[in-house]
Order: sequence, then structure tokens, then C-alpha cells
Amino acid sequence: MRIIFYGNHNKSAPWIAALQAALPGAEIEAWHPGAAPADHAVLWGPPQQLFDEQPRLRGVFNMGAGVDAFLHLKLPPQAVLVRLEDAGMATQMAEYVCQAVIRHFRDIDFYEREMEQGRWSFRKPLARSDFPVGVMGLGVLGSRVAQAVAHFDFPVAGWSRSRHEIEGVRCHWGADQLDEFLAATRILVCLLPLTPQTENILSRATLSKLRPGGYLVNVARGAHVVDEDLVALLDEGHLAGATLDVFRTEPLPQGHPFWNHPKIVMTPHASARTLREETVAQIARKIVAFERGEAIGGIVDTGRGY
Amino acid sequence: MRIIFYGNHNKSAPWIAALQAALPGAEIEAWHPGAAPADHAVLWGPPQQLFDEQPRLRGVFNMGAGVDAFLHLKLPPQAVLVRLEDAGMATQMAEYVCQAVIRHFRDIDFYEREMEQGRWSFRKPLARSDFPVGVMGLGVLGSRVAQAVAHFDFPVAGWSRSRHEIEGVRCHWGADQLDEFLAATRILVCLLPLTPQTENILSRATLSKLRPGGYLVNVARGAHVVDEDLVALLDEGHLAGATLDVFRTEPLPQGHPFWNHPKIVMTPHASARTLREETVAQIARKIVAFERGEAIGGIVDTGRGY
Repeated sequence: MRIIFYGNHNKSAPWIAALQAALPGAEIEAWHPGAAPADHAVLWGPPQQLFDEQPRLRGVFNMGAGVDAFLHLKLPPQAVLVRLEDAGMATQMAEYVCQAVIRHFRDIDFYEREMEQGRWSFRKPLARSDFPVGVMGLGVLGSRVAQAVAHFDFPVAGWSRSRHEIEGVRCHWGADQLDEFLAATRILVCLLPLTPQTENILSRATLSKLRPGGYLVNVARGAHVVDEDLVALLDEGHLAGATLDVFRTEPLPQGHPFWNHPKIVMTPHASARTLREETVAQIARKIVAFERGEAIGGIVDTGRGY
Repeated sequence: MRIIFYGNHNKSAPWIAALQAALPGAEIEAWHPGAAPADHAVLWGPPQQLFDEQPRLRGVFNMGAGVDAFLHLKLPPQAVLVRLEDAGMATQMAEYVCQAVIRHFRDIDFYEREMEQGRWSFRKPLARSDFPVGVMGLGVLGSRVAQAVAHFDFPVAGWSRSRHEIEGVRCHWGADQLDEFLAATRILVCLLPLTPQTENILSRATLSKLRPGGYLVNVARGAHVVDEDLVALLDEGHLAGATLDVFRTEPLPQGHPFWNHPKIVMTPHASARTLREETVAQIARKIVAFERGEAIGGIVDTGRGY
């Protein structure tokens, strides 16, 4: 069995070494133009040329949960595209979203700033019941995040394309129930897959339906958000703030209005890092199962887009 | 039944109105020198004079979980001292500690600062297994905090005076097991009651036993910490940082070395605010039960100190 690896700008050597340790019988090498045909590819951000030159690929394993970058690529017809499931990312997402939600609800940044200025001052505690949290996207990551937030006793709702049931989370689904979900939400967390249906879904039309003082936490993809609509709603005061980890163009381009916006907190797509050990273990396990003809999780329905 | 209220610097009127609504048959007034003798007192930070002038008090209800301020006061001999149990504080403590732990472990402040400077840069993700969290004090608040941290898959241990068993938390107890607990801990969370036995417990002797790169989160009382030992261990590099919500003297005095220390994050005793609705409901419920001769929770063992 031959496997090619492509890590975009990431260092290939430690990944290949880890994959080789997990799959000692496989022949694994970094992809390069003209590389011999392989059975499987383990990838992050591959160029079209890779697929054009690899007609025998049967398994294409993405080293991330989001596969939107693949939807514009043409894979060999027999190849299945497999996304990463959790692999340590769900807990990281839960951590990131919870710290953002808590800091906003509890005014932590205000208190820290006041102390940095030498001031000892208080704001009135706010009622948790006034901060319902709504999670868009209820896959492996969204479900974990919704439950983590609910663990702090916030009212939590969820919305997804298809019906889900999650303990402690009021679940909505489909286009029909989106408005009801938005109107009941104050802190909106986006964990949707990026598809033609969800691109630009966070626009003036949707974000203006959030409760007054709404707050956005986006940890999915930058292209879910219409940037100028978000900035306008923040400036008009309907939204109180946003924590953004992802951007339409990454790194965020110079001169973009998000930079130094007083109501926006940003991190550089760091909410859930790909963890080598967990990722390699999961992909190696799936390759072995795939080769045995067993069912594997995370196969992308390219019609649905995730 | 007569009840006196004393709120220190807090406004009395809304508290008395809420208590009166919960106990319509009671005669409730704000304490003042010369006030008529009452059966119960609902208090925050009372002066000794109040007890000297209220010899008939049977129930003394503190509007907080920590009763260390009472241990220096002389209450009427028949009076029982009752502390607040949870009343919305456990969830707040869990929130505060989790956001502090997550921000430290996940380098969130680094990423936000970099983005504020217009930089898009990364640090290597750290292993969760290298950040064992240890919670000192396993009462209502400590147990809730330990479980909330464990929910994010950190290894979590606890230490307390007496034996406790908490699911998902490796529990230690007594002086004999303190060193073992400290040596296995990297992020230390203090939720101990303040007693003569726990005053100054976080000193060079104990903090230096934490794993290298140790981190302190203190949400209990400032007097648990020997301030100069903490600053020295931060400056020497054995400790990586601290999040402090409580201080030996509050507000923190001008010129104290904690102000603007680059490794210390501070908030002004805001980690768990007293919530009026929950607090009044709990105290009113206990007063009714007490009058009926029923058992109530939170009665302080003054010998033990909490």
C-alpha cells in the first residue's frame, strides 16, 4: 500500500514519521509533482495538480474537520473523501467557545482592564437567563460545544440542517425553524460546515434577528459571515460584540475593518488545532479499516458538502 | 419574628424588600445602633457592636460562603452561624476558574495580543496531559469547580482536610497527602475556607512543590497566599503565572507588587458575586426551617472554622 502526504505549509517529516510508525507496512512519502501513484492521500490544502497526477487514489483523508476547500477540487471518481472526526478538536472547540461566552457574560475583560488601570470597580451581575446561547451546526463539534455551554447552566439551543436530539439542548432544524432559533438567541456560536447553502448565512438578515445585545462567536469558517454586515450591526449597537477565530481570507488582510475594532476579539484560526498524535491515530485506523473493506466514519457526502 | 439586616456598604433597601416578600410575616429592618432585639440576623461584614446589642439572636445568616470574618467576632452564645451554600456561586466559580485555566493552557491571551498587534502567529499546541489541575478545598464550590474542569478532559485532582469522593477527580486528604497532591499539580486552584490552619498555606514551601511552570488560580481568600513568596516564585520562573480574584487587603492597596505584574491577571473579588434572588430565597427557606425546628445546611462548626 502506497500513501502520499501533503501538508501545505506544515512540516511533512514529523507527520510522515508518525504515520509510518502507525502503518509500518505502508510505503509513505511526501507528495511532489511526478510522485508515483498512491492508494491513499493524507492531506491539508492540496493543489488540483495532486489529484490530476494521482488517478489511483481510493482514500483521500483530510487532516481537518472542514472539507469546504475540497469542494472546488476534482478528485479521481473512485476516491472517497474522508474528514477528521473530533481527534481532540471537539474539546478544544468547547474550551474556546466556553471561555469566550464566559468572558462576555461575566464581564471578565472589563474587570481585568479596570485592575490594569489600578481601579477596583464593579458592574451589576447579569442574569444567566438573559443570555441564551444558540449553536448553529450540531455535528461532532457543535454537539460537544452545546453540551459544554449547557454544563454552565446557560439556556442552550441548537440549529442544524437536519434533525438532531441532544440532551439539555433545545434543538431546531431546517430553514423553517431558523428565525425562531435566532430570535431566542443572544450569544450565537457558529460551527456549521461551509457549503454553498451556508456561505454568507451570517448576514444582516440573520444577525439582526438575534436578541438586542447579541454576540457572535465564529469558530467555523470566515465565509459564513458577511463581514460588512457584522461590522455595521456592531457599530449600530444591535450586536454587543464578536469573538472571531476564522476569516474569509486567512491571514486576515491588512486594512480589513475587523483589525482593532473595539467590539471584536480575534485569534488566528487557533480555536481547535490539529493534534498530530490524535489525527495520525485516527487516519491510520481508518486506512486499515478501509483496506479491510470495513465501514469508516467521516466519509463526505459531496452532494451535501460535508 | 424579628429580623435585622446588615449589608456593610451594600444598599439595604432592595435586600430588605426581597426578604420581606419571601417572609411576609416577619418584621424586618436594617440594623442600626440601638435597634430592638431580633431573632435572626442576615449579614455581610457586621461590626462587633451589632452582636453586643443583639443578645437574643438565634440565627446569624451570612450572605456569603466564607465566614472567616466571623471567627474574630463574639456572637451571642446560643446563636448559630449559617453560611451561604452555593446560591448560584458554584456555577460562577466554575465559570471563572475554567476561563482562567483554558486561557492559560490554550495561550488565548497570547493569540489575542498578537492579533491586536496585527500579527498572525502560532505557538505549538501543548499536551493536556502536561497540565494536571489540582483543586484545594472540595466543599460545594470546590467540587463543582473540579468537575467543571474535568469536563474539558484535564487530569484533575483534589485536596481537602477530610476525605471526599468526587467522580472523575483523584481525591487526596489531610496533611500527609498534601505534598503528593502538589507535586502532581501544574495548575493549582484554591477554594479552601480561610481558617487558622489554612492561612498562609500558599507559601514558598507549598508553591515551590508544584510542577515547573505552575500556575495559581486563587478564588478563595487573599490571606491563603504569602504575597511575597508568590511574587518571588513568579519572578524566579518556577511559576508561569497567576490569576487572582482575592487579596489579603481589599481593595488591593496602592503600591502592592501585584499591580501590573506581567505574570498576574487580576479581578476585584468578582469570581462569584452574591446573587440577590438566589441568596434571599435560600436564607428565607432556612429561617422558616429553623423556626420549625428542622435541620438546615451550612451551620458553621466554629471549632473547625467553616
